[in-house]
Amino acid sequence: MIDNPFYTHEFHGEYDLISIGRLDLEEGGSIPDCQLAVTTWGELNEAKDNAILITTWYSGTHQIWRDVYVGPEHALTPEKYFIVAVNQIGSGLSTSPHNAEGDLAMSTFPKVRIGDDVVAQERLLREQFGIEQLALVLGGSMGAQQTYEWAVRFPDRVRRAAPIAGTAQNTPHDFLYTETLNEAIWSDPGWNGGEYKSNAEVEAGLTRQAHIWGVMGFSTEFWKQEVWRALEFESKEAFLTGFLEPYFTVMDPNDLLTMAWKWQHGDVTRHTDGDLPAALGRITAKTFVMPINEDMFFPVRDCAAEQALIPNSELRVIDDVLGHLGLFGVAPTYMPQIDQHLGDLLATEV
Amino acid sequence: MIDNPFYTHEFHGEYDLISIGRLDLEEGGSIPDCQLAVTTWGELNEAKDNAILITTWYSGTHQIWRDVYVGPEHALTPEKYFIVAVNQIGSGLSTSPHNAEGDLAMSTFPKVRIGDDVVAQERLLREQFGIEQLALVLGGSMGAQQTYEWAVRFPDRVRRAAPIAGTAQNTPHDFLYTETLNEAIWSDPGWNGGEYKSNAEVEAGLTRQAHIWGVMGFSTEFWKQEVWRALEFESKEAFLTGFLEPYFTVMDPNDLLTMAWKWQHGDVTRHTDGDLPAALGRITAKTFVMPINEDMFFPVRDCAAEQALIPNSELRVIDDVLGHLGLFGVAPTYMPQIDQHLGDLLATEV
Repeated sequence: MIDNPFYTHEFHGEYDLISIGRLDLEEGGSIPDCQLAVTTWGELNEAKDNAILITTWYSGTHQIWRDVYVGPEHALTPEKYFIVAVNQIGSGLSTSPHNAEGDLAMSTFPKVRIGDDVVAQERLLREQFGIEQLALVLGGSMGAQQTYEWAVRFPDRVRRAAPIAGTAQNTPHDFLYTETLNEAIWSDPGWNGGEYKSNAEVEAGLTRQAHIWGVMGFSTEFWKQEVWRALEFESKEAFLTGFLEPYFTVMDPNDLLTMAWKWQHGDVTRHTDGDLPAALGRITAKTFVMPINEDMFFPVRDCAAEQALIPNSELRVIDDVLGHLGLFGVAPTYMPQIDQHLGDLLATEV
Repeated sequence: MIDNPFYTHEFHGEYDLISIGRLDLEEGGSIPDCQLAVTTWGELNEAKDNAILITTWYSGTHQIWRDVYVGPEHALTPEKYFIVAVNQIGSGLSTSPHNAEGDLAMSTFPKVRIGDDVVAQERLLREQFGIEQLALVLGGSMGAQQTYEWAVRFPDRVRRAAPIAGTAQNTPHDFLYTETLNEAIWSDPGWNGGEYKSNAEVEAGLTRQAHIWGVMGFSTEFWKQEVWRALEFESKEAFLTGFLEPYFTVMDPNDLLTMAWKWQHGDVTRHTDGDLPAALGRITAKTFVMPINEDMFFPVRDCAAEQALIPNSELRVIDDVLGHLGLFGVAPTYMPQIDQHLGDLLATEV
């Protein structure tokens, strides 16, 4: 167990650690006392039919959802909905390599799959809040993977789904991309097979990972148009050292590796012996598939190909020069599009 | 000086090492006895107006041009043209860190710019062959950079130009991409600040570089469609270990770093105080700008934006699911397009 100040209330504000008990894992082994870091907004109504689940992405937590996506001025309004954000296993807030003890600590942390998270979330929502059905499940990137997993695994528990900038079945290109992120960590002698004393010992590897994100996480146009100037940086180098590097270097390498493995192996066809049309055909939720047009590793065509296999779905493309990291909601044109689409989706009777 | 068997006639067939004497460099310093590795096909006619110059790309040599692009069945036919391929400085065949001695060896090798190569090539062509004007200059990727530099620096010496999958002014995204390739080398303890005994000591870093090429060098569709099956590999992992990794691990790290710096800093606006329209407006050559539609780091729009600034030019987009590394000419549909465009260009009276 490592004491990492980033994964605290000081940096992440209010959240509750809720135990769902023992979680048996798809890859074998179990987490004896699985803790999920949960934030909620709004009130669950008596019918318990106004619940929205937010899932989190690689390196992200509920924080970005709180700061950017949720509020009375947004489609995700606490005035109408009971919104629950559950930080994924390995996020650093929920049970993760760096905060686990004994047999689970650090390099011994087991492999966790998207399906494990969704099973854990379903149990949490049912046992903690009595929620049997969700008005909406959504998430970006790895959150989209969890959203698809929900819609395929528990079709009658999901009325609406909004996977943003992500896929139901991870692509081989995405797998290889994620592997270069992992190699940036593994290649740092300070990583030491996962048995470092502090994430600071892996700063060089985390910095290299940040640089690869700089290439793939934004678009070519983001850099060409110098969009970082709007964020008050004076050069692309200053943006790297002032934004991307500190974003990643505070994080825990083993936590990132746990999420990366999960991301790489995300695949709803585990429910249908590898048959993607069969898996996506199980979805009964009204689904808005929402890729970002400049995304370099979840390109629109990959998302559109999946959308075409989902019975009651629409393709809603987000226009954002930031590319995948448009998810941060930096562009002033981003949230109006998200709110429009989520508003339309929530207004759909299902 | 390192004895690297890859940079030999055994692997690269016939070429001549031709000295152009002392080359003073734009960044300062000089190469006292600059040797260029040169291959030619065909005969220079009496008017000396049938000469074509081929320039080389990062990690590439004349070899790929000989094996794929040049021949009586191609637009680049030795039956009609005198074709000269000049391997760039730092290529490993021409003067390069690993084959230099004394003050130039290894980590002490000076910074070389695209303009240095073009000045060296112009001198070589004039002094060695008496060529004052070229019927065509072409190249892919870094070869496109050299092609643009020729057309801007020596407008009256270039009648036609065909920059393939590259830009006249390197983009910031491209700069950052190349930096991740460099960091894969720099982060290998075996690199040792450039003072290794053999490229084998940097195998881990070169392997990581190969993996990053796997993400950016091909397209998302290349991986999704499993195009590597046509190359007789059984899995994407086998393609990585059987093709991409051995391609890079035989190469010299300092040579790659020399080319990478040159690539990163390629910019024809050095001739016009940073004014791109002015620089490209100097081009008098009939120019076909030939991006590859699936290229992830020289996207069509970047190439098209430059083409729009070139007076006598056309945009000829190559359709190839391989993306940037379509340049290898693996797809059976690639060379017919290249031959069509180059044939049209060579048939244009100028």
